[in-house]
Amino acid sequence: MSNNKSVAPGYSTATYRLFEDKADFAKKAEGIAVGLTVGSWTELPEVAKQKMEKYLGQVVSIEAHEPEGAAPGERYADITIAYPDLNFSKDLPALLVTTFGKLSMDGRIKLLDLNPSSDFLSAFSGPKFGMQGVREKLGITDRPLLMSIFKSVIGYDLPNLREQFLQQALGGVDLIKDDEILFENPLTPLEKRVETCVDAAREAEKVTGQKLIYFTNLTGPTSKLRENARRAIDAGANGLLFNVLSYGYDAMAELVADPSINVPIAAHPAMAGAFYPSPHHGIAAPLLLGKLIRIAGADLSLFPSPYGSVVMPKEENLAVQAALLDPSLPLKAAFPVPSAGIHPGLVPLIMRDFGEAVVVNAGGGVHGHAHGAAAGGRAFRQAIDAVKAGIGLADYATDHEELRLAIERWGVREA
Amino acid sequence: MSNNKSVAPGYSTATYRLFEDKADFAKKAEGIAVGLTVGSWTELPEVAKQKMEKYLGQVVSIEAHEPEGAAPGERYADITIAYPDLNFSKDLPALLVTTFGKLSMDGRIKLLDLNPSSDFLSAFSGPKFGMQGVREKLGITDRPLLMSIFKSVIGYDLPNLREQFLQQALGGVDLIKDDEILFENPLTPLEKRVETCVDAAREAEKVTGQKLIYFTNLTGPTSKLRENARRAIDAGANGLLFNVLSYGYDAMAELVADPSINVPIAAHPAMAGAFYPSPHHGIAAPLLLGKLIRIAGADLSLFPSPYGSVVMPKEENLAVQAALLDPSLPLKAAFPVPSAGIHPGLVPLIMRDFGEAVVVNAGGGVHGHAHGAAAGGRAFRQAIDAVKAGIGLADYATDHEELRLAIERWGVREA
Repeated sequence: MSNNKSVAPGYSTATYRLFEDKADFAKKAEGIAVGLTVGSWTELPEVAKQKMEKYLGQVVSIEAHEPEGAAPGERYADITIAYPDLNFSKDLPALLVTTFGKLSMDGRIKLLDLNPSSDFLSAFSGPKFGMQGVREKLGITDRPLLMSIFKSVIGYDLPNLREQFLQQALGGVDLIKDDEILFENPLTPLEKRVETCVDAAREAEKVTGQKLIYFTNLTGPTSKLRENARRAIDAGANGLLFNVLSYGYDAMAELVADPSINVPIAAHPAMAGAFYPSPHHGIAAPLLLGKLIRIAGADLSLFPSPYGSVVMPKEENLAVQAALLDPSLPLKAAFPVPSAGIHPGLVPLIMRDFGEAVVVNAGGGVHGHAHGAAAGGRAFRQAIDAVKAGIGLADYATDHEELRLAIERWGVREA
Repeated sequence: MSNNKSVAPGYSTATYRLFEDKADFAKKAEGIAVGLTVGSWTELPEVAKQKMEKYLGQVVSIEAHEPEGAAPGERYADITIAYPDLNFSKDLPALLVTTFGKLSMDGRIKLLDLNPSSDFLSAFSGPKFGMQGVREKLGITDRPLLMSIFKSVIGYDLPNLREQFLQQALGGVDLIKDDEILFENPLTPLEKRVETCVDAAREAEKVTGQKLIYFTNLTGPTSKLRENARRAIDAGANGLLFNVLSYGYDAMAELVADPSINVPIAAHPAMAGAFYPSPHHGIAAPLLLGKLIRIAGADLSLFPSPYGSVVMPKEENLAVQAALLDPSLPLKAAFPVPSAGIHPGLVPLIMRDFGEAVVVNAGGGVHGHAHGAAAGGRAFRQAIDAVKAGIGLADYATDHEELRLAIERWGVREA
C-alpha cells in the first residue's frame, strides 16, 4: 500500500495482479503501459516519440510468481504501471477508467492498488472531519467508538423508529446509523425521520450525558443528493450514511467538496462484494473500501468484519484499516468500521486486531440482548471498559450484569 | 432473462447464483427474503405479521444444482427472490442496494438477473432513440452499422485528430467514437474537439454522401455531466460516449431524462471486467451491460466481443444482445456493439451470430489496413455487402481491392 517513491512526479501508478499461464509478463506490462496511454510506440518515428514521450506509460515493476511445477491458474505477476497525470483529469472516474477501464476486461486481472500522484491528490480534500474530527465532535479520544444499527426499519413508522433509536441511544452508543436499505418512503420520510431521531437523541442525552451522531441514509437521484443532504442537515442530521459504490466515488467527492454539507459521512459498502472477493477479478478491498473511500472523503468506512457472518479475511480487513489510516496519504484518516456479526464477547479480539482506531459496530449484538437494546449497548460499553482496564470479560462480567447476559448469549472470545 | 410472469404486481425480482457446499438452500433463500426486507419474521407477533406482510420479500424459486459426487465448490443454486416495490425508491441505486448491497458480500454469490416490476420501470423512459432511432438518423435500415474508433488520441492535437477522423469517415463508417480514455485536455478540449470532428464529418459527407454520428466522450465531475453534454451538443456533437460504470447507472439515467440532451448515447463498458467475469461474484454481463444499461437509457452498449483479444464467451455475448433487444421490456431496444479484435474477415461470423441487430465496431481493423483507415472502412463495408449478397468474402474480394488486402492481412473466418 506504500507509495512508489521511485516514481517520477506527475505520474500516478496502478498495481495489478495478472494471472497468465504462459504470457511473457514483461511484454504484457509493456503492452499495458503503451496501450492505455499513447496507443502505439515502437512503430512511431523518432520525432513523434520525442513529442509523445511525456504521455507514455512506464513499467515500474514486475514481480512474477512462477513456482516450480505451478498448476494451471497459479502463475501470476504483480505489475505496477505509472500513468502520466497529463493523460487524465483529476477525478476518480478518470483515474479508474484510465487504469482499469478496458484493462479490467482483459483476462484474469485484479486491480490491487492505486497510488495517485501528489498533483492528482491535490484536487481532493479528503475526509472533512476524519477519525479525529469525529472523536472531537463526541469528546471521546481514549477508546473505540460504539455504533449501532436499527433492528428493522422497513414498514415501521416514526413512533416505532423513535423507540428503537431511543433504546439504542440509552445504552450509551456513540453513533447510530440508518439501515442502508431505508429509502425515501411515506412512513419515515427524510426530514421527519431526522427530526424524530434527533429528538430521541436529545432525550437520551439527558439520561446518558453523552453526545451522539446519527447517520441518516442519503438516497435519491444523483443530481438531488446535495439537496437531500442539506434537507437532512437542516432538519438536524449530524451525520450522513451513503451507499457510495452505487453512485460512484465522484458523487461522494462532490458531496464532501460542498462546504454546506458540514457533517461526517459514513460510507456503506453495499455492492462491494461485486468487486473485491474474487482473487482473479475486480478491485482489492484495501483500495476499494480503504484508499479510494478516503480519497473520496468519507469520514468513516464500513466493511465486513473478519468475525461474523459476512466475512472478509482478517489480513484483508487490517489492510483496509491501514489504508484508511496510512499517514503517507496527505489526507485526514478515516475511521474503520468492521461490521457484521459483532457481539460484546468479540470486543477483546477487535481491540487486539484494530487497536483503538476502530468503531465497534453492532446490530443484532445490541438488539438481541436479553434485556433489550439499551442493555445491549451497555454490555458493549462494559466490554470496552474491561479491555481498557486489562480485565478479562468473564471477570468483568461478574459485577456487570449486562455484559454477563451478553456473554451468556453469545459467549466470549478473549484475544 | 424472461420476466417472472408468476410474480405478483408490485414486486421486483432478483436472481442469484449462490455457491455453498453444505447450506440448506431453502433456508438460505428464506433468510435473504426476510433479511433484506423486514429484517425479522418468525418471531413477530401475528398482528405485526399482518401489518408487515406487504413489505416482506418472497422466495419465488430455487433451482439447486447438486450433481452426484459434486467436488467442493461445485454445488450451487439459482435463487429468485421477489422484493416489494414499496421498500425502495424508483431509481437504480436503490434497486441495486436493496437486492445486492449487503448480499454481495455474503459468500460466493453472483447477481444473475433483475426483473423490475412494471411500476418500477415506469420511472424510466429508456433509450431516447434506441436501435431504430439511430438507424433512422442515419437512414440505414438494411444492414449492420459500422463504427470505428480513433487509433491514438492522447498527446495528439486537433489537426491530427481531424485527419484521423476524416480518414475514418471517408471509408464510409456510420459511427465514430472517441477513445474512452480521452478526457478534458489542453490539446483537444471538448468544444474544439467537437467542432473539429464535426467539420471533418461534413467534409467527408460531401465525398461519401453519407451521414455519420460522432460520439464525443462525456467526462468531468458528476454534477457537470449535463452541462458538459450540452456544451458538446451546442458545439455540434450528435452523439455522446459515456463511461457509465465509473459514474453509476443513475448518472446516465439522469442524462437521458434531460430533454435537452437529445443525441444518442453510447455506453462504454470501462470497468465492467471488475464485475462480470468471475463465476462466483459480481454481476452477470447480460444484466450489467444489457438490461441495466438499457433501463438507464443508453442507445448503444459496447461490450467485449467473443472474437478478439478482450474476450467474453459467445453465449454470454448473445445473452447481452438478447437483453438489449428483449421485446418483453417496455423500452426501446438498444444497439449491441461487440467490440475488440474485429477485422473485416470476421464480418460473416458476426452477422451469423448477431444477425443485423449489431454494430460492427473496429479500431485496429480499420486503421491497420495496408492502405490506411479510409480503405479499412471500405473493406468492412465490402465485407458487409458480401454477406448481405450471400457471397463468400474470398470470392467478393477478387474484385474488391480493399477487402482483398484486409483478408491478406487478417484472414477470413467464414460463418
